[in-house]
Amino acid sequence: MSTVAPSDWSTRPAPEGPDGWIGRATEVAAVLATDAVARDRAGATPYAEVQLLKDAGLVTLLGPTAHGGAGQDWPTAYRVVREVAAADGSIGQLLGYHYLWNWAARLVGTREQWEQVEAEAARQRWFFGGAVNPRDKDVVVRDEGETLVFSGRKSFSTGSRVSDVTVLEGVLERTDDHVFAVVPSDSDGLVFHDDWDNIGQRLTESGSVTLDEVRVPWAAAAGYVDKEFRPRVYNTLNVPTIQLVFAHFYLGIAAGALETAAVYTRTKARSWLHGGHERAVDEPYVLDAYGDLTAKLWAAEALADQVSAEGQRLHEDPDAVTERDRGAFEVRVAAVKARATDVALEVTNRIFEVTGARSTAAAEGLDRFWRNVRTHTLHDPVAYKRREVGRFRLTGDLPEPTWYS
Amino acid sequence: MSTVAPSDWSTRPAPEGPDGWIGRATEVAAVLATDAVARDRAGATPYAEVQLLKDAGLVTLLGPTAHGGAGQDWPTAYRVVREVAAADGSIGQLLGYHYLWNWAARLVGTREQWEQVEAEAARQRWFFGGAVNPRDKDVVVRDEGETLVFSGRKSFSTGSRVSDVTVLEGVLERTDDHVFAVVPSDSDGLVFHDDWDNIGQRLTESGSVTLDEVRVPWAAAAGYVDKEFRPRVYNTLNVPTIQLVFAHFYLGIAAGALETAAVYTRTKARSWLHGGHERAVDEPYVLDAYGDLTAKLWAAEALADQVSAEGQRLHEDPDAVTERDRGAFEVRVAAVKARATDVALEVTNRIFEVTGARSTAAAEGLDRFWRNVRTHTLHDPVAYKRREVGRFRLTGDLPEPTWYS
Amino acid sequence: MSTVAPSDWSTRPAPEGPDGWIGRATEVAAVLATDAVARDRAGATPYAEVQLLKDAGLVTLLGPTAHGGAGQDWPTAYRVVREVAAADGSIGQLLGYHYLWNWAARLVGTREQWEQVEAEAARQRWFFGGAVNPRDKDVVVRDEGETLVFSGRKSFSTGSRVSDVTVLEGVLERTDDHVFAVVPSDSDGLVFHDDWDNIGQRLTESGSVTLDEVRVPWAAAAGYVDKEFRPRVYNTLNVPTIQLVFAHFYLGIAAGALETAAVYTRTKARSWLHGGHERAVDEPYVLDAYGDLTAKLWAAEALADQVSAEGQRLHEDPDAVTERDRGAFEVRVAAVKARATDVALEVTNRIFEVTGARSTAAAEGLDRFWRNVRTHTLHDPVAYKRREVGRFRLTGDLPEPTWYS
Amino acid sequence: MSTVAPSDWSTRPAPEGPDGWIGRATEVAAVLATDAVARDRAGATPYAEVQLLKDAGLVTLLGPTAHGGAGQDWPTAYRVVREVAAADGSIGQLLGYHYLWNWAARLVGTREQWEQVEAEAARQRWFFGGAVNPRDKDVVVRDEGETLVFSGRKSFSTGSRVSDVTVLEGVLERTDDHVFAVVPSDSDGLVFHDDWDNIGQRLTESGSVTLDEVRVPWAAAAGYVDKEFRPRVYNTLNVPTIQLVFAHFYLGIAAGALETAAVYTRTKARSWLHGGHERAVDEPYVLDAYGDLTAKLWAAEALADQVSAEGQRLHEDPDAVTERDRGAFEVRVAAVKARATDVALEVTNRIFEVTGARSTAAAEGLDRFWRNVRTHTLHDPVAYKRREVGRFRLTGDLPEPTWYS
Repeated sequence: MSTVAPSDWSTRPAPEGPDGWIGRATEVAAVLATDAVARDRAGATPYAEVQLLKDAGLVTLLGPTAHGGAGQDWPTAYRVVREVAAADGSIGQLLGYHYLWNWAARLVGTREQWEQVEAEAARQRWFFGGAVNPRDKDVVVRDEGETLVFSGRKSFSTGSRVSDVTVLEGVLERTDDHVFAVVPSDSDGLVFHDDWDNIGQRLTESGSVTLDEVRVPWAAAAGYVDKEFRPRVYNTLNVPTIQLVFAHFYLGIAAGALETAAVYTRTKARSWLHGGHERAVDEPYVLDAYGDLTAKLWAAEALADQVSAEGQRLHEDPDAVTERDRGAFEVRVAAVKARATDVALEVTNRIFEVTGARSTAAAEGLDRFWRNVRTHTLHDPVAYKRREVGRFRLTGDLPEPTWYS
Repeated sequence: MSTVAPSDWSTRPAPEGPDGWIGRATEVAAVLATDAVARDRAGATPYAEVQLLKDAGLVTLLGPTAHGGAGQDWPTAYRVVREVAAADGSIGQLLGYHYLWNWAARLVGTREQWEQVEAEAARQRWFFGGAVNPRDKDVVVRDEGETLVFSGRKSFSTGSRVSDVTVLEGVLERTDDHVFAVVPSDSDGLVFHDDWDNIGQRLTESGSVTLDEVRVPWAAAAGYVDKEFRPRVYNTLNVPTIQLVFAHFYLGIAAGALETAAVYTRTKARSWLHGGHERAVDEPYVLDAYGDLTAKLWAAEALADQVSAEGQRLHEDPDAVTERDRGAFEVRVAAVKARATDVALEVTNRIFEVTGARSTAAAEGLDRFWRNVRTHTLHDPVAYKRREVGRFRLTGDLPEPTWYS
Repeated sequence: MSTVAPSDWSTRPAPEGPDGWIGRATEVAAVLATDAVARDRAGATPYAEVQLLKDAGLVTLLGPTAHGGAGQDWPTAYRVVREVAAADGSIGQLLGYHYLWNWAARLVGTREQWEQVEAEAARQRWFFGGAVNPRDKDVVVRDEGETLVFSGRKSFSTGSRVSDVTVLEGVLERTDDHVFAVVPSDSDGLVFHDDWDNIGQRLTESGSVTLDEVRVPWAAAAGYVDKEFRPRVYNTLNVPTIQLVFAHFYLGIAAGALETAAVYTRTKARSWLHGGHERAVDEPYVLDAYGDLTAKLWAAEALADQVSAEGQRLHEDPDAVTERDRGAFEVRVAAVKARATDVALEVTNRIFEVTGARSTAAAEGLDRFWRNVRTHTLHDPVAYKRREVGRFRLTGDLPEPTWYS
Repeated sequence: MSTVAPSDWSTRPAPEGPDGWIGRATEVAAVLATDAVARDRAGATPYAEVQLLKDAGLVTLLGPTAHGGAGQDWPTAYRVVREVAAADGSIGQLLGYHYLWNWAARLVGTREQWEQVEAEAARQRWFFGGAVNPRDKDVVVRDEGETLVFSGRKSFSTGSRVSDVTVLEGVLERTDDHVFAVVPSDSDGLVFHDDWDNIGQRLTESGSVTLDEVRVPWAAAAGYVDKEFRPRVYNTLNVPTIQLVFAHFYLGIAAGALETAAVYTRTKARSWLHGGHERAVDEPYVLDAYGDLTAKLWAAEALADQVSAEGQRLHEDPDAVTERDRGAFEVRVAAVKARATDVALEVTNRIFEVTGARSTAAAEGLDRFWRNVRTHTLHDPVAYKRREVGRFRLTGDLPEPTWYS
C-alpha cells in the first residue's frame, strides 16, 4: 500500500446510501489489495491502513451525522467489513471490531453515555480497540470512590497499538459484576505487548495487554447509575452482534480468495497436458469447482445479509427487545457463523485446486486466506453454535445469554 | 386428507399481503400433511388436493385482482410452493408448475393473449398442466391456415388428469420454431396415459401424453402475430423461472422432512442405552445434526429468497430485460438450484440419523422426502448448473438461453 | 429367481480356497440379482433364496470339514456376505447373521457345546436365526432344575421363519445374567410374528417374536457349567464380530449399487443435450462421480479386509485374547462401521446422479440400495462408534464391552 | 535436530524384516520431530537430515544385501516414507523420491545397468535426486557419438543440493525419444538454483536446475542398447510407483498431524467454558472429530497398503507385466492418490477444530501439515485421477501410459 499514492478522499463527495458506502469500501479494498501479501509477510503494524480507513470515512460509518458520522446502519457496516476483508482479512477484522467497540457504548451504556461517546468518536474519528475477554476473571476493578482502578491482564486485545481508544473490561472486586469503560489507548498503566504471532490475521495487533492501575472515573462505567448496573435484554446483543462481524469477515476473506484465484486461473494457470483443453478456464473440473464454491459462498452471504437485516430491526428499538427476540436472533447468528465458517474454510482450502501447483509459490501468498480463516474461526468452538441452532430447531429452547460468545 | 372435513374457505376473509398468503399456504399444508404418507403409498390421483388449492385461493394467487386473483408476486408464489411442498412434495410441484404454465402466456404471448388467458384463468380457477418438454422434437405442428394441428407424444406431462387446461408445445413442420398454446385438457386428441410410476413425486401425474391431431386456432399460438414469432429476451426467462420453482419445492420438502423428524425425535426417539443421556433430544450428536442441517437449509432458503426478489425485478419490467440481466439471473438461479439440490438431498438422507432405527418402519413414511427430492433433482443434471455458475464466476461468460433447462 | 432354473450345485466340485468360495458367492449373487427388484417389491419370504444358499454350500462355509462344512475362515465369510449383499441386501444380511449365530456357540459356549452345535449345523445345513437383542430385559428365563423356560418378547428377530434353528437370549430370573441357547425354530412356544414392514432390508424376516414358555435343557445354556457362566474375554467378541458383518453387507450393497448404476449408465443413460458429449459415459461429471465413489468404496473395502484379518487372528486363539486385543479390535471395527456407513450412504444416494431422471422409474428399483443401507445403518448410532474411535485415538482408552453393539 | 546428539546407529544391530525397518523409521522420525517446526521456519537445507537417513540405513533400504543394502521391498519402503513424513513432510518426500530415482535404473535400464547402479548406490549410500519432468521438452540431448550432451532447464528438481547423484532426463535431438541417465550431482554444467520458495514442503530443495552441456556416456543412457531403446510395459510403472510414493507421504503427514494434535489436545487444549466438560478430551465434538478423522485415515492407509502389495507383485516379475496389469494397477494407484489427497487435506485442515484458538500460535507450527499437503497434492490435478478411476469402473477402459503422471 505504501507504494500507492493515497487518494485525496477529503476532496471527494461523500458516498450516498448503503450502495455508495459499499462502493467506497470496495475502493479502499482495492488500495489494500495492492500490497496485502507483502504486508502479511512483513507483519507490519497497520498504522497507514487504519489511517486509510479514517480518511475514506469508513471508521465513522455508524457515527451520528450531526457529528460527522455517516449515519449508516449495521447491515451496511457488515457489508463494508466484508469488502475490506476481501482484500485484507486483518484490516477487515480490525474495522469490524472497531464498529462493535464503538457501538458497545450503546449496547451497555446509558443514553447520556453513549450519545457522548458516539459524538466524540465521530468528531475525532476514534479508532476503537478492546481489551475485553470476559472468559476469564483476569482483570479486577477496585472501587476508589469516584474512580475505578483496573488491574490485571488480557491475553488478547485486538487493535491495541493502532487504536485511539480502548474498551476495558473487568470484574468489580468481590462481585461477579462486569464493568466496561472506554479509555484513551495511551492511558497510564495500559501496556500493550507486541506478542501476537499467529499463523493468520497477523496484522490485527491482537497481543496481550497489561492493566497496571488504570484509573477510570465511575461516570465512564458503561450502564452504571449510582454504581449500579441496570441490565436490559439489549445489553446481551453484544455476542450476536460481534459474531455477525466475525461471519462477515470470514465471508469477505472467502470472497477475496475466490476472486484472487479467478484472476490467477485466467492469467497464469495452465491446463492439464493430458486433458485435451488448451485453456485452464475450460477444464471441466475447474468450472465445477468454481461453480460449487460460488454457489456455497452466495448462499452463506444471503443468509448473512438476511440475518443482518433481522438484527437491524432489534437495534432500531432497543427497549423493545425481548428475551425471545434476542434468543432467536442469537440462534440465527449462530447459523450464519456455522455456514460462514464451513464455507470460508472450504473456499480457502480448495482454491488451490483451480490455481494449480505453481500457485503455491510463497510470493503468491495464496495461503494467507486459509491461514486467516483458520485462525479466527477458532475464536470459540463452532460446534457449540451448531448445538444452539440444533436445540432451538428441535425443542425451541433459546440459548442463555453470556458475556462471551 | 379425505377424512378431514374441508375448511369452509369461501366464508373466510382473503389473506392480506405476502405474509397472509404464506400463512394460508401453511394452513393448507397442515391439511395435506394429515394423510400425506397414506396418499403417497396409495398413489391416488390428487383431485381433492387440487380442489383444496383452488378453494384456498392458492391456484389464483398470481392472477389479476380484477378477475378474482390475489395479485401476488413471484416471491410470494415461491414461498407458497415451499410451504405446500413441506407437507406434500407432489402437490408442491403441481402448484409450482401450475404457476409457471399460467405465467407462460405472459412470458411468450402477446399482451392481448396473456391478458385474456390470465383473466379467464383467474375467473375460472383453471389448474394448468403442461405437455412441454422441448428436449425432443417429438410433437409436430401442422399449419392448416386458421388452425394448428399438434401431433406426437411427450414422455412427461405434469398435471395431466388433474388439470383444466394444458400448455402444448411443438415444432412447426419444416421449421425449428416452437409453438406454445393453452388448450382445454379434455380437448379431442389429447390422451393422458396413466403411466407415471416412479420412486418419488408419485402424485404429480407426470405420465406421458399422446397428441393425436389436437386442433388449436392460430390465434392461440403464444406470441405469434401474423404467423410470425417476435422473440424478446423476456421469453427466455421461462427456464430460470421454472428452475426457481424446482428449487423452492426441494427446499420445502427438506423443511418438511426436518420438521417431521423433529416431531419424531421429540416424541418417539430413544436415547442410546450406553450414551448417558435419558432423552434423545439431549444427545450431542442429535443436536449437532439438527444444527448443521438447519443452518444449511436456512442458507439455501436465504439465497432462494434473495434470487426470487432479483427475478421479480425482471418480471416487473419485461421489456427492459437485457441479455445480461437475463444471463446473470439464470446464473443466480443455477446457484440456487445447486444449493437446494445438495441441501435437500443431505437433509432428507440424514434425518434418519436423528430419528433412529424404528423410524424406518414403512408406516412412518420418512423415506418419502428423500424419494421425492431424489426423483425431481434429476430433471436436468445439476453438474451443468454448477458449470454455468463456475464459468460466469471465472470468465464472466453468460449462459446461452435454451428452451429447456 | 423363481424363473431361473437352479444350478445343479450338488454335482459340481466344491470350490477351493477363499477365492473359490468368493467366486461361488458371486455365482449365487448372479442368480439372486435376476429378480431382486421384483422380490423386494413383493416382500416375499425368501424360502427359495435360503435354499439356494444351502445348495451352493454357503450356509456351511464356516462349518467343520469333518462334518461337511467348508472349513473356511471369517475373512472369507465376510467377503461372501459382501458378494451376496451386492445382489440382494436382505439375503446378505440373513447370511451374515446366520454366520454369527452359528458361531455364537463358539463365542459363548463350552468346547463340548460348540463342537456339537457346529457338527450338527454342518451335517444338517441348519440356517440360523436369532431372537437376541440384549438391549432390553424383555425375555425372562426361569430355572426349573433341569430345564430353562424362556418367556417374553423380542421386537426384532432376524431370520425367523426361514431359519431352522434360533438363538434365544434372555436374563435369568432375579439376576443380571444373560443366557443364550440354540433351539429349533419350530419349538413349542416360539411364535414369529410376520410384522417386519420397513423401508429397507424388506426380506430379512426381522419381525417380532413371542416366547411363551419355551423350554430348553440347562445343558444347552451356552457357556454354563453347573449353572454357572465362566466368562472369558473371547465371549465379548460377539459385538465386533457382528458389527463387521454389518459393515460388509453395507459395502456389498454399495458395490451392487455402483455396478447396477454402471450397467445403466452404459446401456440406458443419455448425455445432456446441451453438454457436447454424445454418450453419457463421456460426461466429465459422470466420470468424476464414478471415480470418486469407486475410490471411496475401495478404501472402505480395504479397511474392512484389513480389520477382518486382524479379527481372524483373535478367533484363531480364543484363550489368548486380552482385554487390550479385544478393545483395540472393537475400535478398529468401529472405524470400519463408520466408513462403511458413510460410503454406502453416499454411493447409494449418489448413483442417481450418473443414471439420470428416467432411472427413477419404480421398475428400475434403483432406490432399494439406499433404502437397504439407510435402514440397517441405524441399528445402533454410528456417532457412538466414531466416539469410541476418537477416544481411543486421543487417550488410548478402550471401549467397555457390552452385550449389545 | 541439530541440538540432538545423533544416535550411534552404526553400532546397533540392523533391523529385521519389514516391522524392524518400520520401527527404525519411527525412531528416525522421533529425531526429526524434535525440531521440525524450527527447521520448517528456517527453510534450512537438510544436509544433516539426509545424513541421518543414511546413518539409519533408510537410504539403502531397497538396495541389494550383497552390497550393503537392506534388501527390503516396496511395501516396506512406502511404510518407511510414511513414518518419516509423519515427522517431517519434506524429508519424507525426499526419501520417497530417492527410492524412485534409485529404482529408475531398474524400471528403465538394462539388467546390466541397473545391477551396476544398485550395487554402487548401496555401497556408497548414494542419495538420489532427479531433474526429471517430462511435461516439457525443456532439455535437449545431443548425440556426440560416444557421449550424450544434455542442455536445458528443469523448473523443479527435487533433492538437488542434498543429493549425491541426479537422474537427468531429456529428449534426443530431432526425436521424441526420452533419455534417462544417472550422473553425479556435482557434474560439470549441472547448476542447481536455490529458488524453491513455496508455502509447503519447504525443505525439499525442489528448485530449478540448469543443464549446460552436461556430458554423459551413451552407456549410461538407461535402457538403450546400440543407441536404441527397447520399451517394455514395466518401464511405464514409473508413474504409478511414484504416485504411490506421493500418497504415502500425504498419509504420513496426515498421521503426523493427527498425532501432534492429539498430544496438544491432551496437554494444552481447554474445554469450552459453557460446555459443561472439564477436560477437552471429554468434549463430544472433539471425540467425534478424532473418530471421524481417524476412521478416514485408517481407510486410506488400508487402501494404500493393499495397493502397495499389488504393485509389489508386479515389481517381482517385471517381464510378466501386461498392459492390463499395468493399467489396472495405475487405476488402483489413482484411487489411492484420490483418497490420500482428500483425507490428508481434511485431516490437516480440521485438526485445528480439536486444538483450539491458541494452537494457531506460529510457534506451534500446526499449519505446516496443511501447507505441506496443500503444496504437493497439486503436483498433478487429482481430478484426472478420479477420471481414470471412473472411466475404468464405468467402461473398463485402461489409462494410457505417459511419462508424466
